[in-house]
Amino acid sequence: MRLEVINTGTELLLGSTLNTHLGFLGETLLPLGLRVGRQVTIPDGEIIRDAVLESVGRADIVIVTGGLGPTSDDITRELIAELLNLPLEENEGVMRVIRLILSRRNRELNEQTRRQAMVPRGATVLANAWGTAPGLYLPPHPVAAAGGELSPHLILLPGPPRELRPMVREVVLPLLGSICEGRTVPRGMRNFRIANLGESQVAATVEEPITSLGDVELGYCARAGEVIVRVLGTPEHLAAAETIVSAAFPENYYSAQEFPLEHTVVDLLTRMGQTVSTAESCTGGLVAHRLTNVPGASAVFPRGYVTYANDAKTDILGVPMELLANHGAVSAEVCAAMAEGCRAAADTDHALALTGIAGPGGGSDVKPVGTVFIGLASRGHGQPVVEHHIFNVERETFKQLASQIALDLLRRRLIRLI
Amino acid sequence: MRLEVINTGTELLLGSTLNTHLGFLGETLLPLGLRVGRQVTIPDGEIIRDAVLESVGRADIVIVTGGLGPTSDDITRELIAELLNLPLEENEGVMRVIRLILSRRNRELNEQTRRQAMVPRGATVLANAWGTAPGLYLPPHPVAAAGGELSPHLILLPGPPRELRPMVREVVLPLLGSICEGRTVPRGMRNFRIANLGESQVAATVEEPITSLGDVELGYCARAGEVIVRVLGTPEHLAAAETIVSAAFPENYYSAQEFPLEHTVVDLLTRMGQTVSTAESCTGGLVAHRLTNVPGASAVFPRGYVTYANDAKTDILGVPMELLANHGAVSAEVCAAMAEGCRAAADTDHALALTGIAGPGGGSDVKPVGTVFIGLASRGHGQPVVEHHIFNVERETFKQLASQIALDLLRRRLIRLI
Repeated sequence: MRLEVINTGTELLLGSTLNTHLGFLGETLLPLGLRVGRQVTIPDGEIIRDAVLESVGRADIVIVTGGLGPTSDDITRELIAELLNLPLEENEGVMRVIRLILSRRNRELNEQTRRQAMVPRGATVLANAWGTAPGLYLPPHPVAAAGGELSPHLILLPGPPRELRPMVREVVLPLLGSICEGRTVPRGMRNFRIANLGESQVAATVEEPITSLGDVELGYCARAGEVIVRVLGTPEHLAAAETIVSAAFPENYYSAQEFPLEHTVVDLLTRMGQTVSTAESCTGGLVAHRLTNVPGASAVFPRGYVTYANDAKTDILGVPMELLANHGAVSAEVCAAMAEGCRAAADTDHALALTGIAGPGGGSDVKPVGTVFIGLASRGHGQPVVEHHIFNVERETFKQLASQIALDLLRRRLIRLI
Repeated sequence: MRLEVINTGTELLLGSTLNTHLGFLGETLLPLGLRVGRQVTIPDGEIIRDAVLESVGRADIVIVTGGLGPTSDDITRELIAELLNLPLEENEGVMRVIRLILSRRNRELNEQTRRQAMVPRGATVLANAWGTAPGLYLPPHPVAAAGGELSPHLILLPGPPRELRPMVREVVLPLLGSICEGRTVPRGMRNFRIANLGESQVAATVEEPITSLGDVELGYCARAGEVIVRVLGTPEHLAAAETIVSAAFPENYYSAQEFPLEHTVVDLLTRMGQTVSTAESCTGGLVAHRLTNVPGASAVFPRGYVTYANDAKTDILGVPMELLANHGAVSAEVCAAMAEGCRAAADTDHALALTGIAGPGGGSDVKPVGTVFIGLASRGHGQPVVEHHIFNVERETFKQLASQIALDLLRRRLIRLI
């Protein structure tokens, strides 16, 4: 089945809005055995007619996003009905939903809003529980402008991601499943997350054993401080691939879920009934921010410190002044003292400490920009462990990489303790 | 001039990589008077030939990204040369650059890499100082497959954003400027950033006065906690638009630069020689993280506290236990005590404090999820000011909005003091 996506929206072409639909659809439709073969972005307006017409004979399924709303440039519905020569009819069910939503928002029904209840004859309404504009499904119809050739299956969806995404998951996937039945090979998908290894290193290790499983597809996605190995295949192949990945990277493979590393760390701490605190210099609160992005973090993360200035390191964490004077704030010695001082001050089971030079200024020959020391102190574990890295990247990526190493240092200790 | 963009890359269609080229190009080309009229994403491989062929007669300029590298699926150069019936010739200048880059990386020249020096006859090499694959410019040529019609101006660029973006700024913009000379109306562009107002409120106020300036274009872009008003026009119109925006929103308009709010805050503090500290509960370090994203933040932000647990609020910030017991941790009273306690503990000129319920759990009828108190204490300003908001959004957006309000509260105080 040949699938194409048409995204309408002048804002996508002007650079004010990033097109996140394509990536979402590409990833979400993979398990059905569907690939996006081509994607087109066009401005709001009449060009949607040409874009759909061009897809006739070239695509079996076309997903159109945007242009279903109430404003004057939302004319996807009308132009596609015209192209397929289908009359528009007011749909009672959609009208009821619109009236209900408007009454809740204390707003009047006007002609513009009413247009959203117009449905081309023969179309299926795709319920939108998250907004007033429903989606539409139009099965193949003869297209006069294409010499009577049949149109692709057309699926029209509203543009806002908070409406489109749940609709795709709940309404469009089952619909596509029935359209494709017997014509594609549905497959399971797993995204194996591997912390703090490079893409080429991961690929060199798992590519051969996973592809030799047989009929699987394999892809990689490099993020700051992790690689995601994407595998599509049968349930048996996915289980075998997980065995390969976890045997190859017993320390670094941490999840087959969609959540980033901080979720694994908070989950482990929660299950173990343990706590962590943070003392951050160069990452300036990012480790704390990531931990507190996880719902329920408050039970395992009572407090954190951002100790940028030297006197913050001495006052709050009890780092000895001599240590700072002798080794400098960016040193393994100070990092260890920060970690142990943080753990003691916060009275937590573990403490992470980071000190480094995020740049662009502040570097020297001995300690270049990008230098970072990352320490972990744990109750009853004696001296803190301290890692030394140099990340030669710009400031925000530096912070991201350092925070990833820190969270992973804690994760690796926790899995040995559990 | 009708401009189209073709992005090649299977990874864009699979969802593993977000297409950021389109937004970048759309925004960067606007001042030349160029709009992207249509954009197509296609997989690596032969389909690039069809995509370029389709644009003949429809577009005056086509920018193609990707497919110029050394691997076997990088065949944009060869297929376009074939379509235009142009022989490929090894270019001495490109070869020299490639040899130089390879010798620096201690790598051998192989046949695959050598392909990158092949240039279609009559093409202009667009220097790439950031990688081995140069860009190419092909002026209009007759296309046999299109009945001899002339091809658009074709600009081929490498796919990696770190190579494409500087090339566009430094090489492609002047080239497009000469192609378009006299055929488009170049215009200046300004992005006016307005904190903590809604898009409809901003539009209702400035739309009429700005459009009535005459030949200007106006757009809006809503972000978490701010609206960007984009204006294109002559230098005189831009200056007039800035006057309108700053008069309409004297408190909320903060910058016409590309940087977010934390940059304005750090700049103001730096100019004033003042300091700030932070006491964060519900935002969990995000305010500190944003401040420390700004190079040079260490001079104005000596320290911050993440005080999730009640005992962290009492120990570190000196919030009285009775206050917590009587009003709860999420209250105006506790927020004020956190701000003042933070300022005193950190000995800074200002202190921001945030306490709230990020959710999804922890809400009540009186204090629903999304409730937040945001306080600012300043040396010599008496009682801290405390704002109360309810943001009915998911956890990460809640943190973003609360951090934006906090930074803006400080910014508004600073501009009154400066």
